Amino acid sequence: MTVDPGTADPTPLQERLTALEDRVRHLEDHAAIVGLLASYGPLVDAGDLRAAQVWAEDGRYDVEGWAMGSQADVAAMIASPAHQGLIATGAVHLLGAPAVTVDGDTAVAVCHSLLLRHREGGFEVWRAAANRIDLVRTGAGWRIAARTTRPLDGREESRALLASLPPPV
Amino acid sequence: MTVDPGTADPTPLQERLTALEDRVRHLEDHAAIVGLLASYGPLVDAGDLRAAQVWAEDGRYDVEGWAMGSQADVAAMIASPAHQGLIATGAVHLLGAPAVTVDGDTAVAVCHSLLLRHREGGFEVWRAAANRIDLVRTGAGWRIAARTTRPLDGREESRALLASLPPPV
Amino acid sequence: MTVDPGTADPTPLQERLTALEDRVRHLEDHAAIVGLLASYGPLVDAGDLRAAQVWAEDGRYDVEGWAMGSQADVAAMIASPAHQGLIATGAVHLLGAPAVTVDGDTAVAVCHSLLLRHREGGFEVWRAAANRIDLVRTGAGWRIAARTTRPLDGREESRALLASLPPPV
Repeated sequence: MTVDPGTADPTPLQERLTALEDRVRHLEDHAAIVGLLASYGPLVDAGDLRAAQVWAEDGRYDVEGWAMGSQADVAAMIASPAHQGLIATGAVHLLGAPAVTVDGDTAVAVCHSLLLRHREGGFEVWRAAANRIDLVRTGAGWRIAARTTRPLDGREESRALLASLPPPV
Repeated sequence: MTVDPGTADPTPLQERLTALEDRVRHLEDHAAIVGLLASYGPLVDAGDLRAAQVWAEDGRYDVEGWAMGSQADVAAMIASPAHQGLIATGAVHLLGAPAVTVDGDTAVAVCHSLLLRHREGGFEVWRAAANRIDLVRTGAGWRIAARTTRPLDGREESRALLASLPPPV
Repeated sequence: MTVDPGTADPTPLQERLTALEDRVRHLEDHAAIVGLLASYGPLVDAGDLRAAQVWAEDGRYDVEGWAMGSQADVAAMIASPAHQGLIATGAVHLLGAPAVTVDGDTAVAVCHSLLLRHREGGFEVWRAAANRIDLVRTGAGWRIAARTTRPLDGREESRALLASLPPPV
């Protein structure tokens, strides 16, 4: 209680309300980013070109031997025979829970990703990777500005992506 | 700041507060749904019949050759020799991060699911699937009204479930 | 609306604001715990000793044949030849979505965990486990007070960890 009951001065209430609005905006930002990232896997495994909208128009996606420099490049990857062949066999693009740090109009998410392929009688984990994802607030909401994905096969580069996470707060 | 400092008129504060209450309710709805879905895997792998309470009393669960039409049907599936045998061997029911869209008293979640089985020396990914989950707000909180699960083995039906996700916001 | 427009009495507004502050704090607690848990896997697979900071200084971690009794013990595990050898080959420590229950300054999270290893041409799921994680609010934020991890190979002990989850709310 920062206002004595019975006073009519609204100023302290206003300050508390403003502080609370900031905290709610921060929670909304965090939830929007987690939700945005959660939408990628289902859309890309559906072969739905809307998966590219998770990126900003000039967003980059750098993954083992495939460097995309725009939303249009990501859409072209989804439409490519390589990706369409993968989902025709049966594929699962899973993101691990992202550790997200929001700072104003930019944010960083660090997480694992798995790519599974259907095969006779089950599924195999074909790739597992480290991801660093930089995000930006746009007029249309949060979008990926840059995603870098590297396999977790022991290489130092992948471990450096994971370690780019800020410490626990 | 929508109120000039020094005025005693509480109306604008009240409007801001009402707007903020709506935003907090939306965040709470989203968190409740994510938490509800997170509780299913642990409870079903424990063989705990409370896993059925994730569904509404008349909730449906349609998964490869098993069509359940109520919470009681889901409980019967958990108690069945097929499910009890699976968890006696060792099983993991994992849901991928859900992409959740709340609209008033209903919501839609789209996500992947994995089912792993213990075998000599490790675990195998036995099934991987697409899920569309419709939820409803009940007197007891959010519950599943209908869940449809189909294997990601390349079939078009599974990709359509994933693509039923609304676009990123 | 709990205040008639046109009245200057701020008390009901104050009560609504205080209630909303409590709800926002609860959402923040939940988000902080989910974020803390999400940071562990990336940091431990990076071999980053900051992964130990996810625990309280006297936090415990009890996992198949390895009983750690402090943050320093967890750091020693991360620095050990066993763990460093694992990540040099390529490893993924994934936590499933945690079902989190916050009660004042303590909380419980129940979830699955997977440990994957890189091998020729792909990855294998080496271990899958049940986890019960007790958390405590410290001056530095939420930290793990105790984590117990047991393999999901059919043993009753693991199923009991999963069933220690409170029912859906």
